[in-house]
Amino acid sequence: MPSRTKTPKLAIGIDMGGTTVKYGVVRGHEIIEELEPLPTPAFRGPNPLLKELTVRIKALTAKYKGIAAVGMGVPGFADVTRGYVHELSNVKGWNRVEVSKILTAGSGLPSFVENDANAMCYAEFLHGAGKGAVNMIAVTLGTGVGGGLVLKGQLYRGSTFGAGEIGQMGIDYGGVRGEHGNIGALEKYVGNREVAALAAMLYAQARCRVSPEDCEPRALSAAARRGDPIAKQVWDTYTTHLAAGLCACVWLLNPDRIVIGGGVAKAGDIVFGPLKKKMAAQLAKSFRTQLKIVPAKYGNDAGIIGSAAVALDLASRRK
Amino acid sequence: MPSRTKTPKLAIGIDMGGTTVKYGVVRGHEIIEELEPLPTPAFRGPNPLLKELTVRIKALTAKYKGIAAVGMGVPGFADVTRGYVHELSNVKGWNRVEVSKILTAGSGLPSFVENDANAMCYAEFLHGAGKGAVNMIAVTLGTGVGGGLVLKGQLYRGSTFGAGEIGQMGIDYGGVRGEHGNIGALEKYVGNREVAALAAMLYAQARCRVSPEDCEPRALSAAARRGDPIAKQVWDTYTTHLAAGLCACVWLLNPDRIVIGGGVAKAGDIVFGPLKKKMAAQLAKSFRTQLKIVPAKYGNDAGIIGSAAVALDLASRRK
Repeated sequence: MPSRTKTPKLAIGIDMGGTTVKYGVVRGHEIIEELEPLPTPAFRGPNPLLKELTVRIKALTAKYKGIAAVGMGVPGFADVTRGYVHELSNVKGWNRVEVSKILTAGSGLPSFVENDANAMCYAEFLHGAGKGAVNMIAVTLGTGVGGGLVLKGQLYRGSTFGAGEIGQMGIDYGGVRGEHGNIGALEKYVGNREVAALAAMLYAQARCRVSPEDCEPRALSAAARRGDPIAKQVWDTYTTHLAAGLCACVWLLNPDRIVIGGGVAKAGDIVFGPLKKKMAAQLAKSFRTQLKIVPAKYGNDAGIIGSAAVALDLASRRK
Repeated sequence: MPSRTKTPKLAIGIDMGGTTVKYGVVRGHEIIEELEPLPTPAFRGPNPLLKELTVRIKALTAKYKGIAAVGMGVPGFADVTRGYVHELSNVKGWNRVEVSKILTAGSGLPSFVENDANAMCYAEFLHGAGKGAVNMIAVTLGTGVGGGLVLKGQLYRGSTFGAGEIGQMGIDYGGVRGEHGNIGALEKYVGNREVAALAAMLYAQARCRVSPEDCEPRALSAAARRGDPIAKQVWDTYTTHLAAGLCACVWLLNPDRIVIGGGVAKAGDIVFGPLKKKMAAQLAKSFRTQLKIVPAKYGNDAGIIGSAAVALDLASRRK
């Protein structure tokens, strides 16, 4: 007797970053083939890059039967309904680009564009550390701090597709300004550059000689594990700031899951232990009893998996 | 030919506060009859009060045909699905009360309980200053600071019915503690008591003799309009704090409407002018172009209208 379990449809997921464009064929939580990434700066603007992508997509549709949709995650502001990229912060020439239209016309497949943090969020929700959640906040900690929201089991994008900008939320009304004049922006406290700068300053004050590499998150978490008091102090400050930002999210949205991704999430208990403790001390009981704070399951794969998943979701709604 | 416009159903809305329980018969945006309020402290706990309410509800169902549901807004934590009041902060003896069950059994009508800020939010969304919004934040400014959210056109309650606690969100990670140990809670900066304390301190420093009444929001807005520099300074500080809290909400939720209610909302341009300016200076363009910040339409009526509206909404879903 044949199994009645539905096989997940295939989709192509594209994860565009400032340095590379990664892509692959996805079935559910699985990347069944990932291709050699394209080097983003080698293409002069969006049209040559999108043209090359359609060639690659066609090759994949010839190889795999039943690819149902194409999803592209981009590092910036995307109008998901119109399939439009408004502006990418770190990639030149990407202003007002009709990504969906170009990819759909070139590949013959329904194609969609989504913000990369939302794609990551959706991958974690469907297949990763957010599985089973109803209301979930995803946050990515890196040079920048981004985020995405799943509310009532659906990706929540806001009125102009901008929702989830956790890194831009203020944690200090008298603090330093963020990229948009926003005072006390969380990103300016927990971004990788800011963490490195704090570590460098504290080491210098202690008359310790360290290299710039010693001030990177990975080295700082190893140092803290060895008992280095300055690295420990850096993470203490870090978790105080991050707890402030995430508690604000929790008071507003009362979620049952927070998924933390990005390099810092790999620091493990050095970050998660004090973060959870500081948050629990600042939340009413009903806000913390159902709340799980967990590291992301997917690292670099989240973009491809999530973009593919978003594309399948949007394609099925269109019918 | 009869009109095909559907007449809105009737519902009873109950707005419970620490001093009075107001209630009335509601049709859409209209309270068609409001009764003499019951004095909350005159009843020894929930059972006598709910019993009295069922008697009143029965009298109203005898008078009006077609009352479809009863909704009760409470100042605290309510489990809407189970119709359960967990705890009311300002009313003694209201712990673990099965409000819906008691009211339904006593009145014979489908009865529901909702947090009062959510009820206010829903009234504004359906009939008031939030009409036409898709994603809306409602905030009530008083002794406490509360809020409610409508996302994708529906009341959003969160995983344990606690969402929208804007007053508990931190705006200063190194600031004063809120009721729940939450550092920098907005409420501790823009609550009526805190505003009065700031005004009293500034007047004292300036060697001005003022009464406690002069430090209340209403008097302070009148004074600021007359040019009183200290009152102006109070509102400047106030709008800086409020802008910080609301900007954080906007970065996270990217709404198209913010509805501001409570006493301070009546201060008009003294608050709304600088608030909008300070927020615009701290938001990316795509977050501010579609965002309207408006005063609430309903004052004291929002609770009755909103509770009735929520009840009709929940009753229709149950079918």
